[in-house]
Amino acid sequence: MLDMFVALLHYPVVNKKGDTIASAVTNLDLHDIARAAKTYGVASFYVVTPLYDQQKLVKELLSHWTTDAGEKTNKIRGEALSLVKPAETLDEVKADIKKQTGREPETVATSARRYEKSISFDALRQHLKEGAPYLLLFGTAWGFTEQFIFEADHVLHPVMADSNYNHLSVRSAVSIVLDRLKGDYRGSYADD
Amino acid sequence: MLDMFVALLHYPVVNKKGDTIASAVTNLDLHDIARAAKTYGVASFYVVTPLYDQQKLVKELLSHWTTDAGEKTNKIRGEALSLVKPAETLDEVKADIKKQTGREPETVATSARRYEKSISFDALRQHLKEGAPYLLLFGTAWGFTEQFIFEADHVLHPVMADSNYNHLSVRSAVSIVLDRLKGDYRGSYADD
Repeated sequence: MLDMFVALLHYPVVNKKGDTIASAVTNLDLHDIARAAKTYGVASFYVVTPLYDQQKLVKELLSHWTTDAGEKTNKIRGEALSLVKPAETLDEVKADIKKQTGREPETVATSARRYEKSISFDALRQHLKEGAPYLLLFGTAWGFTEQFIFEADHVLHPVMADSNYNHLSVRSAVSIVLDRLKGDYRGSYADD
Repeated sequence: MLDMFVALLHYPVVNKKGDTIASAVTNLDLHDIARAAKTYGVASFYVVTPLYDQQKLVKELLSHWTTDAGEKTNKIRGEALSLVKPAETLDEVKADIKKQTGREPETVATSARRYEKSISFDALRQHLKEGAPYLLLFGTAWGFTEQFIFEADHVLHPVMADSNYNHLSVRSAVSIVLDRLKGDYRGSYADD
């Protein structure tokens, strides 16, 4: 399936104080999100950073795990990380998806806040079945800049629970969002 | 609410070869799972290890983040980590829950495999509303020993997706399970 793509962006995001920054790549983000992406049938997982040294770091990690040495110690990690594609900008990601699918993807920003133009999980789950490519955008650090969110085609509803605490790690947020969009309810949700 | 408790066990789990081991504590497990636990209203999050030096490590991490120095740099982490309780054994965890709630908790083991006596997410979600304490058990490394799973009161259905790849990190698995059991469907799932 070439319907769902995920990008983890390290720019443009904000820090605690609200300043726009380029955040550092975290190894475990790549591992955890690649494994979740592989589990839920994501077509490609883009790791986006404008910083050259950070791109290099991503490529080194990939080459370790997806070539002989790493594959031998842990095939499962290599399999998941083979979904990862480093990229410099969002435009580069969109172009790559267009090359794969023949279509420009609809972008879906995620945020811990709810925006007026936000789309529900149910609605997006339905859209995904129609086969058009959707690109889910996740921000590191303290999340995307407002400007970036306004420029996306859609904003996904925030993951909500019955509490006032809403500070999931990006690794948790991606996992939950993918499960809500692609989890196998038949197989494990209900008694059958 | 004192209905849902989570324990992350570092023993008895298996390694890649199937040997029973005591695994090492991972800092990021504590951070990510504490944040998810806080988000989904978990009453306490127990980090269980029989190894003295590993318990010490947990206590040091907690004392850093839940006292002055850490609280000042990141209040949100401290808030989540205040749910964490180190423990040596499962029995110690059960006793602590009994002390808090007046009742022995029902234990629910989790696994990437499906067992005959397994309980569905829907069924457990309903049970949780009845208020009896449930203790969700998550295993590190390559998961619990068979023996441990057989001794639990229940085994939760595995998290399934539409793929043959089923190797989520424990951080992702906990996040998804908590969302399936306590996610706010009203608020974010459907258009309303």
